[in-house]
Amino acid sequence: MQKPTLPKGTRDFGPEQMRNRLFIFDTIRHTFKRFGFQPLETPSMENLSTLTGKYGNEGDQLLYKILNSGDYAAGLTELDLASGSKKLTPSIAEKGLRYDLTVPFARYVVMNRNNLPMPFKRYQMQPVWRADRPQKGRYREFYQCDADVVGTDSLLCEAEIVLMIDDVFRNLGIDYTLKVNNRKILAGIAEVIGVPGQEATLSVAIDKLDKIGRDKVQDELRERGFSDETLTKLSPLFAFSELPLDQVLVQLTTWLGASETARIGIAELQEMIQLVGQYGLADAPIEFDPTLARGLSYYTGAIFEVKARGVSIGSISGGGRYDNLTGTFGMPGLSGVGISFGVDRIYDVMEELKLFPAGVGQGTQVLLIPFDLEARSVALPLLSQLRESGVAAEVYPDLTKVKKMMDYANAKAIPYVVLIGSEEVQTGLLSVKNMVTGEQTKMTADAVLSLLTL
Amino acid sequence: MQKPTLPKGTRDFGPEQMRNRLFIFDTIRHTFKRFGFQPLETPSMENLSTLTGKYGNEGDQLLYKILNSGDYAAGLTELDLASGSKKLTPSIAEKGLRYDLTVPFARYVVMNRNNLPMPFKRYQMQPVWRADRPQKGRYREFYQCDADVVGTDSLLCEAEIVLMIDDVFRNLGIDYTLKVNNRKILAGIAEVIGVPGQEATLSVAIDKLDKIGRDKVQDELRERGFSDETLTKLSPLFAFSELPLDQVLVQLTTWLGASETARIGIAELQEMIQLVGQYGLADAPIEFDPTLARGLSYYTGAIFEVKARGVSIGSISGGGRYDNLTGTFGMPGLSGVGISFGVDRIYDVMEELKLFPAGVGQGTQVLLIPFDLEARSVALPLLSQLRESGVAAEVYPDLTKVKKMMDYANAKAIPYVVLIGSEEVQTGLLSVKNMVTGEQTKMTADAVLSLLTL
Repeated sequence: MQKPTLPKGTRDFGPEQMRNRLFIFDTIRHTFKRFGFQPLETPSMENLSTLTGKYGNEGDQLLYKILNSGDYAAGLTELDLASGSKKLTPSIAEKGLRYDLTVPFARYVVMNRNNLPMPFKRYQMQPVWRADRPQKGRYREFYQCDADVVGTDSLLCEAEIVLMIDDVFRNLGIDYTLKVNNRKILAGIAEVIGVPGQEATLSVAIDKLDKIGRDKVQDELRERGFSDETLTKLSPLFAFSELPLDQVLVQLTTWLGASETARIGIAELQEMIQLVGQYGLADAPIEFDPTLARGLSYYTGAIFEVKARGVSIGSISGGGRYDNLTGTFGMPGLSGVGISFGVDRIYDVMEELKLFPAGVGQGTQVLLIPFDLEARSVALPLLSQLRESGVAAEVYPDLTKVKKMMDYANAKAIPYVVLIGSEEVQTGLLSVKNMVTGEQTKMTADAVLSLLTL
Repeated sequence: MQKPTLPKGTRDFGPEQMRNRLFIFDTIRHTFKRFGFQPLETPSMENLSTLTGKYGNEGDQLLYKILNSGDYAAGLTELDLASGSKKLTPSIAEKGLRYDLTVPFARYVVMNRNNLPMPFKRYQMQPVWRADRPQKGRYREFYQCDADVVGTDSLLCEAEIVLMIDDVFRNLGIDYTLKVNNRKILAGIAEVIGVPGQEATLSVAIDKLDKIGRDKVQDELRERGFSDETLTKLSPLFAFSELPLDQVLVQLTTWLGASETARIGIAELQEMIQLVGQYGLADAPIEFDPTLARGLSYYTGAIFEVKARGVSIGSISGGGRYDNLTGTFGMPGLSGVGISFGVDRIYDVMEELKLFPAGVGQGTQVLLIPFDLEARSVALPLLSQLRESGVAAEVYPDLTKVKKMMDYANAKAIPYVVLIGSEEVQTGLLSVKNMVTGEQTKMTADAVLSLLTL
């Protein structure tokens, strides 16, 4: 007899984990909705022609491919086989699993371009799959929760991203830091230090500042051909992380004033902060981080990344402004800004900091235990009344030992148990046990209903 | 430039469809929760060793298989290729996509057998995938919403299935008929007509009664070796569908009284109905249907199927009692009963009968339109207040022509628009337009807040 197992890098989510996860999903959805984002779901499977080439070479290799149905091998020859897996794949697999929510969103926008009101604001909360090497915190199936607005370059949208981040994490009880940057500032830095257009190379190196320190970042830049003069000019960069945001902006302007691009980037950042203030959020924990890049190639303006305070878990949310989401599908020039919440990491943060509210873990609120068939005639109508009042309620379905039934209530952390025997049927007074305090009291069915619908 | 397309048999769900779908999901989840079922999610991918052989030969062919990562073809020889697709598959694909929620549930129960409180009640709402030929109402990716309780054979569970069906469809506003049968009654019929043990063969034929009529059912049974005498004995079967449930039970007892198995099945049916009454649901639209089988092999007791009245759409829910869910994974004798709701068909029913409540389609409730930058200083704080009060609210992000902004509100069916120009900033009286009636009134920001949080 086979012992069943789970595929590597995948997980079951049992009742307690699910209730906590649903709390996170509901909180994020609540924010998305109130900010006017509309739900979208796309299929798990996409044509490989849609997915391939969108995530770089490494991404292509991490795509899960689905074997064609039917006699997929019928036309294959020895030659096909000899050509190797990579070349063989297109002959036997036409479809792949979603790798992120951005490419399917872009595909959807292009396919529905004539029917979408612009600006188009959508949110999407679905799993994605990556054939990555599994490790702690990295799974082969995980959820993304994205909100994007496309069809406008208004900085109000960047401001609303900041507001949504604050709304979500405040509602979850997570103390966070929002790091912001702007591609145009990075481009301005590259200009000012004498390597215009090389902000991508620059950002790859300075992105590692946290991990490897200033000296090693400079070594890496030297290896990539940055001169000592260039590196000297770069030195103001390493002083910013310690300063408050308003001072950073003043110093940035002094340092990068010669670059028109940088001035635009700084102005965008300033306007975004000012707008956030107009919305009434004056004290958002925003930090400017000139080393923040998040795979730069994609972003053209603001870049966002959120970390939770008090834990050493990677970023729990990130996003930014892009200008060419749908270009690869033949619809150029669509500007937008988006944010993605990482549910799995948010879960880890909340678990480590014990932030899940006690009530969230609560499933069934009351278990009715009738001791015999007669007692059922009292238990079942009460059960229906409780459920109609919105109370999650169960009856123990078998007539068995009291201990076994109480163990069941304890195992499910059910806070109240109502015991109904022949005495209770006669007197109409049911025995209600508070499973937390151990206290047991007698009350009528109506009183039970009142107690639980308080 | 490629034109993107969707894989055949898959769908995008845009904002309006999603809001309706979420209404269905939320309604079903609301019922599951109140009945004490706990959420479970399993991975989309399962090992093919878990899935294969569980759904019959046809099912195995309909499984989506996932190509192994890396150089999957490395060890393949010409011989492997020549052996054909079916034999080749295990060498290049270890994983497949979930085909239903039952087998993953069984795997989960077996893997967690020592930690699950029994009876274990779980619900699961996730997509499943089948490489079926797409046709109207049949998709390659669709959601199932299942609730099962395992570890008890109490008929209270069957009664609660009936209650949950009623709760879900009443809350959705769907007028339904619940058809019930019992495997033991089918077995009893086979005994009484002289073909004991052949209830599976019998049920395959009589299951088609609706579609092909009595004569053709008899023809088919004759072909399958049923004698004329047997068929004569079967004739009472064809009279039941017209009778009320209590009369059916009387007649069934008369007809099948000689079979102990049938008597048990009838008694189970009677007890279930009686319990449903004790719960307070006396008028459930239950019909006995002795032709109901639903792929019989699986079920051992009660069998359920729900159809919506007033439309010709197949069953929208189904389930039953089984005795050996986990036997195939080495854990025999676990009895349970489950119900599955078909969200896609429920959606079709509700759309055809126009049952979605008007409010469900509602996303954003109010659009703020500031005409200039100064007006934003009035709009943005109001926007934040609205959202904090739980109102889905948007600001039009660009300063553009009024017509364009009103078109946006109309396209998104936003019921209220608040127009803010220099006059409004000066007087503090904002212009509020009801987009349904066309009526326009002036009011303070506080009054707008009151209007929308009523």
